[in-house]
Amino acid sequence: MSYMESKGIALRNAEKQLSIASTRDKNLALQKVAESIKNNRQEILNANQKDVDISRKNNMTEALIDRLMLDDDRLDGIIEGINTVIKLQDPVWQSNKVWTIENGLTISQMTTPLGVLGIVYESRPNVTVDAFSLALKSGNCIILRGSSSAINSNIALVKAIKEGLQNSPISKEVVQFIEDTNRDLVLDMLNANDYIDLIIPRGGKGLIQFVIQNSTVPTLQTGEGNCHIFVDKSADLNKALDILINAKTQRLGVCNACETLLVHQDIKEKFLPMVYENLKEKIELRGCNNTKTIINIKDALEKDYKEEFLDAILAIKVVNDIDEAIEHVNKYGTKHSEAIITEDLTNANRFQRRVDASTIYVNASTRFTDGSEFGFGAEMGISTQKIHARGPIGLEQLVTYKYLVMGEGQIRK
Amino acid sequence: MSYMESKGIALRNAEKQLSIASTRDKNLALQKVAESIKNNRQEILNANQKDVDISRKNNMTEALIDRLMLDDDRLDGIIEGINTVIKLQDPVWQSNKVWTIENGLTISQMTTPLGVLGIVYESRPNVTVDAFSLALKSGNCIILRGSSSAINSNIALVKAIKEGLQNSPISKEVVQFIEDTNRDLVLDMLNANDYIDLIIPRGGKGLIQFVIQNSTVPTLQTGEGNCHIFVDKSADLNKALDILINAKTQRLGVCNACETLLVHQDIKEKFLPMVYENLKEKIELRGCNNTKTIINIKDALEKDYKEEFLDAILAIKVVNDIDEAIEHVNKYGTKHSEAIITEDLTNANRFQRRVDASTIYVNASTRFTDGSEFGFGAEMGISTQKIHARGPIGLEQLVTYKYLVMGEGQIRK
Repeated sequence: MSYMESKGIALRNAEKQLSIASTRDKNLALQKVAESIKNNRQEILNANQKDVDISRKNNMTEALIDRLMLDDDRLDGIIEGINTVIKLQDPVWQSNKVWTIENGLTISQMTTPLGVLGIVYESRPNVTVDAFSLALKSGNCIILRGSSSAINSNIALVKAIKEGLQNSPISKEVVQFIEDTNRDLVLDMLNANDYIDLIIPRGGKGLIQFVIQNSTVPTLQTGEGNCHIFVDKSADLNKALDILINAKTQRLGVCNACETLLVHQDIKEKFLPMVYENLKEKIELRGCNNTKTIINIKDALEKDYKEEFLDAILAIKVVNDIDEAIEHVNKYGTKHSEAIITEDLTNANRFQRRVDASTIYVNASTRFTDGSEFGFGAEMGISTQKIHARGPIGLEQLVTYKYLVMGEGQIRK
Repeated sequence: MSYMESKGIALRNAEKQLSIASTRDKNLALQKVAESIKNNRQEILNANQKDVDISRKNNMTEALIDRLMLDDDRLDGIIEGINTVIKLQDPVWQSNKVWTIENGLTISQMTTPLGVLGIVYESRPNVTVDAFSLALKSGNCIILRGSSSAINSNIALVKAIKEGLQNSPISKEVVQFIEDTNRDLVLDMLNANDYIDLIIPRGGKGLIQFVIQNSTVPTLQTGEGNCHIFVDKSADLNKALDILINAKTQRLGVCNACETLLVHQDIKEKFLPMVYENLKEKIELRGCNNTKTIINIKDALEKDYKEEFLDAILAIKVVNDIDEAIEHVNKYGTKHSEAIITEDLTNANRFQRRVDASTIYVNASTRFTDGSEFGFGAEMGISTQKIHARGPIGLEQLVTYKYLVMGEGQIRK
């Protein structure tokens, strides 16, 4: 039996119990896990220190080290995250749709767990706990494959999770962790159609493409956000500036940050200098030729419009009208989050109808595309695909449904 | 530019118009297509005759010839199908969820088309028109790849569809047909991630497996139905018999037909002879050893429990209790349709909660799993996967959603 098969069989067995577990039992299990992480605090921090030391020795950048690093505050945040999930409504065995057909059969569409989730993720060890707690609350078993740079932290966290589960009504087999960092095991996971119902990659473009290209298990594509703000000619320019500053600078490395600014031709002379004055110190601005007739900045090349910078860089383009803006967004965007700043109702509607993205804002910052901001409580990532779930993946996106049909002997004529 | 690319670019262009087309324009286009099929009746029937002649020469079985064959009645049925779709509610730009978050942003979850659907299907030429009309009504462009045995019929049907569209407000480019029967083109289609949003295979197990193994485009798995009826000890045995006869014999070759009967140990002596008397003439019965102590039938081997017969064969197994029945169903079933016949409320609930399938019946025939029976009007197939859509794929399952966020300048704190 292969490594993946033995994990898979354990998951499918645990699924039988977890998929029908009561909310009370699931919440109790989460509480025990939170306590266990608290009790294993020192062990987890020591393991994380080991990862940080090794990564420094391997010349990891300090930005990435920062993502990898755990301390008391961050561990408190992880524990707080579990408590948030405990408070969320159980998404399982709920129905919004019950109807009766002509012959008297009553059909109910009931939510049920997906079964087994597979998460392939990079660096941040908090994903280990976040993904586990969302999976458990939605009645799903989970198999985790983190990056080798966080292997010691992840092993310590999964050990603490399993210890917590052992004091709870839920089997510790509901979570499996791939401790072996051999990359072939990722391929085994991506093709374990008998054992995994959905693969969610969390990480950079390379990881996500690798998963899509190699997975025969259905996947939920997440993350890449090349988001735009289009400032229409009717825009309130102060509003536009505030929103741009927020969307570009509040956090640079996030998927819902703004990467390209599109400015309507008719307001370029007024708005572009405002952008320049307010951003030039913090952000490298790159503009099209038309932009550069107004403000003295670097060239924007086509590749700049394609790129998710995740950095202190903003590409700028002047467009002739809203349709050119929509076309640009649909050509270069990644179907994540897009915004129009306008006081014109027709244009607001036009932009929202014609732009193809998970979330389309009128007069607000793209930074709100987030499970917690949306009121979902927590999220497993932001889906940029159109199948199954779009936008923030909260508990409601981690279930499927089945139809229950109640009869009294009906047969088909 | 490759063949697939040129089709893909045409589809993506047509998508811009179709995705925001009004219900009135879409219905008008469907009406024009129905008229055009009527007007091209003789040409379509002649093309179909050519396919039938070639297939006979190639020794196709008469059962398959029957699926391939069109006549006036069947063509009327196809046209009637379009009229049914015209009457269905437009699933696009609808919302069941609008909410406002703390800072005053209002979020609406609006349905939108998926974009471009790819259908890979075998034999039956009516799928060409059915799939097209469901796609059009749901605002989706479609690319069709039928089997080579129906190539002349499909070319004639697509020609008629395009002629109809030319007299309508919708571009004829919304539908593309792969006329080249080279199998490599299927592979191109399965990997056209830039041009196709969802691939739906319709056909036998071989086709579906080929698509799943080779597609990097998300797929919606359809079709295979190894469905069970479990007759519990508290069952009303006359109800059970009627339902079994209906589910097994009403139509043999359909995915929601019953393939295995599970009988509770305590009623085997009463129920199995009833089954034998009523089915032995029409259906080949294959039983486990325990079954064979009661009725004199052929052996059921393990492979019989695994198989979707689509034929006049029924596998029978005696089980000790409901949990053994649930375990058998979850082990051998294909997550399609499953039924329990019982008068016991606890067991009805237990079966519906623990069986993992798209549709789970209490005291009714499995034959009802069907878009039209469910009240969806028409369907693109029955999904047996858990991601995106489960059970009958009607118009509502052919859309995705986007979040529209309306603000007044909100930024993230």
